Amino acid sequence: MSGRLIVLSGGLDSTVCLALAAAESHPSDRLLALTFNYGQRHGVELERAAAVAVHFGADHLVVRLDASAWGGSALTDESIAVPRAASGDTDAIPVTYVPARNLIFLSVAVGVAEARDLASVAIGVNALDYSGYPDCRPEFVASFAETARLALKRGVEGRPVEVLTPLIDQTKADIVRLGIEHGAPLELTWSCYRGDADPCGTCDACALRARGFAEVGIPDPALRSS
Amino acid sequence: MSGRLIVLSGGLDSTVCLALAAAESHPSDRLLALTFNYGQRHGVELERAAAVAVHFGADHLVVRLDASAWGGSALTDESIAVPRAASGDTDAIPVTYVPARNLIFLSVAVGVAEARDLASVAIGVNALDYSGYPDCRPEFVASFAETARLALKRGVEGRPVEVLTPLIDQTKADIVRLGIEHGAPLELTWSCYRGDADPCGTCDACALRARGFAEVGIPDPALRSS
Repeated sequence: MSGRLIVLSGGLDSTVCLALAAAESHPSDRLLALTFNYGQRHGVELERAAAVAVHFGADHLVVRLDASAWGGSALTDESIAVPRAASGDTDAIPVTYVPARNLIFLSVAVGVAEARDLASVAIGVNALDYSGYPDCRPEFVASFAETARLALKRGVEGRPVEVLTPLIDQTKADIVRLGIEHGAPLELTWSCYRGDADPCGTCDACALRARGFAEVGIPDPALRSS
Repeated sequence: MSGRLIVLSGGLDSTVCLALAAAESHPSDRLLALTFNYGQRHGVELERAAAVAVHFGADHLVVRLDASAWGGSALTDESIAVPRAASGDTDAIPVTYVPARNLIFLSVAVGVAEARDLASVAIGVNALDYSGYPDCRPEFVASFAETARLALKRGVEGRPVEVLTPLIDQTKADIVRLGIEHGAPLELTWSCYRGDADPCGTCDACALRARGFAEVGIPDPALRSS
């Protein structure tokens, strides 16, 4: 059993995750990219995810989740504005937080992995240069892996689904470097929380991404003007 | 903060869970019944869940999950037959197992609870008289509660969503008794894995239910012939 599932949003981190999985896989290994359509404000992410999956020859499964039903986040609720990047108060959890998002994504991912007999699931969370989301912390991921072991038939059988977070200790600059090194199509990736024709450059996600490329010293290939 | 969320399938156990929550609540407390439409073979469960929610004056949220995408269970995959009740090999996990079902249900439930500021989520799993599903065991539920505490903003803030399993130590007969005692509309509940006009009487769920009513010594009010 050697197939891999990668949670793919179409952003920088998840695309680099898929590039790493592709690089570590044997050509005959199955790669399954799993994308969630959860009532995001815009469909740009979903299009980019599809293009990235094609780039790597991965199968692509899009699962709908009507998370807009619970609202409570600037990413799913039209009545909450996407803010400009945080200006210092980095301990606060921002309004772009979606309650239980990674918990739900990983839960569906391990279910799919068990149903399709895939060895592992990978998610591109990182605990450095992150946006203050509690469900990106290593202690959450470790606890989730144990809960999934207890939930699944595979766990009872002694061969739990591995939960991989290859980027958890990396800075955004490290992630950009890893992506370049492993041939990730960074020009296809989309990080902006807004859904305009070009990234806004001012939201948290744009700011973190810009800092990463700046540290590496190369222009962001996803920006038209660069 | 005193509202309660109850995962409601429309079956016996979840209906008794809702009856207990209603009995323990102040009339002004919010009750939210959360039902998943996950590509079950039949819609009877969903209709019964709606009727049960109305009975208790609970708000009702139906969340769609296209779990049929991952198949792998007799409950979601038309190509796998629903078997007759197990005839002794009670350690085996049956084909009606849906990979990660309770993990996904609880993950969405705690997300909804956080978004709507509800104190607790309750789910009607029970570890006695159950069908051999790993995600009904107390060790799974305890681990899930800890994972949810780490995933959620509420956990970081020191007021985690409570995860309640009031039926986990009860037999089916106990559950029938609790339901009668608390005015649960047992005649509305649906347990059968099949979706015919009447319960089949032969699947695992029907067999467990029949044994429960037989032990209490009353006819099952959901059976037309009783």
